[in-house]
Amino acid sequence: MNSPTQIPDLNAIQEAAERIGGTTVNTRFEKSQTLSHILGTDIWLKFENLQFTSSFKERGALNKLLQLSADEKSRGVIAMSAGNHAKAVAYHAQRLGIPATIVMPKNTPNVKVEDTKNFGARVELEGHSLDESGRYAQTLAESENLVFIHPYDDGQIIAGQGTVALEMLEANPDLDVLVIPIGGGGLIAGNAIAAKAIKPSIKIIGVEVEAYASAYNLLHGKNAVLAGSTIAEGIAVKEPGQLTMQVIRELVDDIVLVDEEAIEEAINQLVTIEKTVTEGAGAAALAAVATHPHHFKGLQTGVFLCGANIDSRILASVLMRRLVRKGRIVRFLIRIHDLPGTLADITDIVGSAGGNILEVSHQRMFSNVPVKDADLYLTVETRDGEQSRDILKKLQNLGYHTTLIQD
Amino acid sequence: MNSPTQIPDLNAIQEAAERIGGTTVNTRFEKSQTLSHILGTDIWLKFENLQFTSSFKERGALNKLLQLSADEKSRGVIAMSAGNHAKAVAYHAQRLGIPATIVMPKNTPNVKVEDTKNFGARVELEGHSLDESGRYAQTLAESENLVFIHPYDDGQIIAGQGTVALEMLEANPDLDVLVIPIGGGGLIAGNAIAAKAIKPSIKIIGVEVEAYASAYNLLHGKNAVLAGSTIAEGIAVKEPGQLTMQVIRELVDDIVLVDEEAIEEAINQLVTIEKTVTEGAGAAALAAVATHPHHFKGLQTGVFLCGANIDSRILASVLMRRLVRKGRIVRFLIRIHDLPGTLADITDIVGSAGGNILEVSHQRMFSNVPVKDADLYLTVETRDGEQSRDILKKLQNLGYHTTLIQD
Repeated sequence: MNSPTQIPDLNAIQEAAERIGGTTVNTRFEKSQTLSHILGTDIWLKFENLQFTSSFKERGALNKLLQLSADEKSRGVIAMSAGNHAKAVAYHAQRLGIPATIVMPKNTPNVKVEDTKNFGARVELEGHSLDESGRYAQTLAESENLVFIHPYDDGQIIAGQGTVALEMLEANPDLDVLVIPIGGGGLIAGNAIAAKAIKPSIKIIGVEVEAYASAYNLLHGKNAVLAGSTIAEGIAVKEPGQLTMQVIRELVDDIVLVDEEAIEEAINQLVTIEKTVTEGAGAAALAAVATHPHHFKGLQTGVFLCGANIDSRILASVLMRRLVRKGRIVRFLIRIHDLPGTLADITDIVGSAGGNILEVSHQRMFSNVPVKDADLYLTVETRDGEQSRDILKKLQNLGYHTTLIQD
Repeated sequence: MNSPTQIPDLNAIQEAAERIGGTTVNTRFEKSQTLSHILGTDIWLKFENLQFTSSFKERGALNKLLQLSADEKSRGVIAMSAGNHAKAVAYHAQRLGIPATIVMPKNTPNVKVEDTKNFGARVELEGHSLDESGRYAQTLAESENLVFIHPYDDGQIIAGQGTVALEMLEANPDLDVLVIPIGGGGLIAGNAIAAKAIKPSIKIIGVEVEAYASAYNLLHGKNAVLAGSTIAEGIAVKEPGQLTMQVIRELVDDIVLVDEEAIEEAINQLVTIEKTVTEGAGAAALAAVATHPHHFKGLQTGVFLCGANIDSRILASVLMRRLVRKGRIVRFLIRIHDLPGTLADITDIVGSAGGNILEVSHQRMFSNVPVKDADLYLTVETRDGEQSRDILKKLQNLGYHTTLIQD
């Protein structure tokens, strides 16, 4: 048993694995033939997005809950989170009969609030940011004498998260490098400890999103601004933990950054190739391999798909935006004479060339064209960029003043 | 070894399993706690969508290819398919060094054409329907002396598909019922033979989509029209095979129908709960359990997720349409006075009530309102139906003539 204030060692992590092993899922861990081919490295995916509450957070939460004293269990626990940590704590507290309070920011989507309530937790919506909610949770913990379950800066949480690497190295001892997203740092800290103790030659590469390069700043002595919106809200953390940062400095070989487009592309690859759903943070490690190939060339690379809690609307947007980027959905602007039959002629040309028209709109008031003319916008689905250019050429050859609008 | 013209027995299916076992994936087969809770039956999901080419079709194709004579192998094979059978044949023919020709209809999406070409197959785009392409493939097979690989009406194909049930019953011998989509009938025929031979008491329920109830018609002596568009194009088959229909009549306990909305809902549940991607046909079996619960109440139900080849745009649409159906994306129609400040006031009301405005449009020309007024359409994302009604009420209470537009 290790303490909450102490950095765990391999032994503590192995004990955690025994403690939680019958309950959390030893998730799929498989080589992806197609991604390996695309990325020029042997890609081994660890599907932590397939834990019951859809993230690795259960490992740490359960390891922590199981080590509470009888008195602590009866007093109950409290956690602050709008996401995966909330679900993990609520789910396992319910299983173990421990009363749980979850503090969430006021603007938390109702779906997540309901998910958490469905696990029997009392949910308190307080604060307008994670910081405010966190302070409120601390106050409530003191006033109600509840055990605060930190999302990452706790030795027992870190030990639980570190059990992922045990499973990976047992399944494939030849792994050369692990690629692990960093939010507060619990996941990378635990797994760096476990992996380096088992196999000192293994490399640990951390991944942060560009907008929240907090551990990167600390490690490299940089001062990048930490702000902005990101699809990887699960790792948009402004300050990593103290324990976790200590481990990162000691054991992590490098931290690399990924941008929003790379994350979106990785989410897409996981959907279209692996048929699996990940959230932004969950796809960040794969995005890192694509963005920084020199770190991974020819190696056996273990990629942590750490979570899958993504909103359906965001996922749908990501899928559609990629089709636009790949030129499979395009917009044509065509200057037309406002005469009967023109639209029929144009749509016939597009259709015969294999384009599927998704949307038609006219612009008359604001276009700087003669009053008898109009701007016609056509949104068209094509097979690929080549077919888009083919349609453009056909329209132009038939005398239509046409441009392809790139975003 | 069984013959292509002969219905296989359990022995032939077990031989097929040995033949293909080292190559095709013994896919995940797991109980879904959440879906079981929602649907009131023990739902066991067989993830055939996670085969390498994303469908069960590999099993039959590989079993067939491995039984070709040396002479047949050197002559090469030909298949007709716009989908999963094409990929399955092309992939395994390439692995085995057998020349493969795939005939696809002319309107086949380029992505599928490219996928098939990437497996080294010669692709011939001929015919404007599967029927026309099929006839062309037969002609080509004769003129070029190629071995035609039928997608379902072949005893060796049926035997290969039947290996799914062997894996399921080995993992869980307590299964009471298997729910299996029917297109041409290869999947259900093989698995009905295997399952009933191992466990005569097991029930086999076939699933067709309403628009293509071909086996249902034959089994129940009905005459439902077979036409229309469906998201489950993988099972939109107008005529099941002769061999397969013979097995269906003998061994299938019932065939049930599912509608488009049920399939869309099942695709959504698999994405949001199981974090897995299926095509329409791949989700049809789960849709059947939801649509016909009396068949499955309290039973151990094996659900075939048979494929995952879904277009990103279709998947995105399915996700968005569900948000609309659940009232999480709504449209308000507000009759406004066309005055400065009105839109600011309205958007403030919506925003303060927690609605996220996705789209704004005005309608002036066609609305039957006074010329100084206008119809304002707001598309708004909300947490749920309750919040939508709350926003509606707030706008009405402040004097705006507002209606919520249901589709």
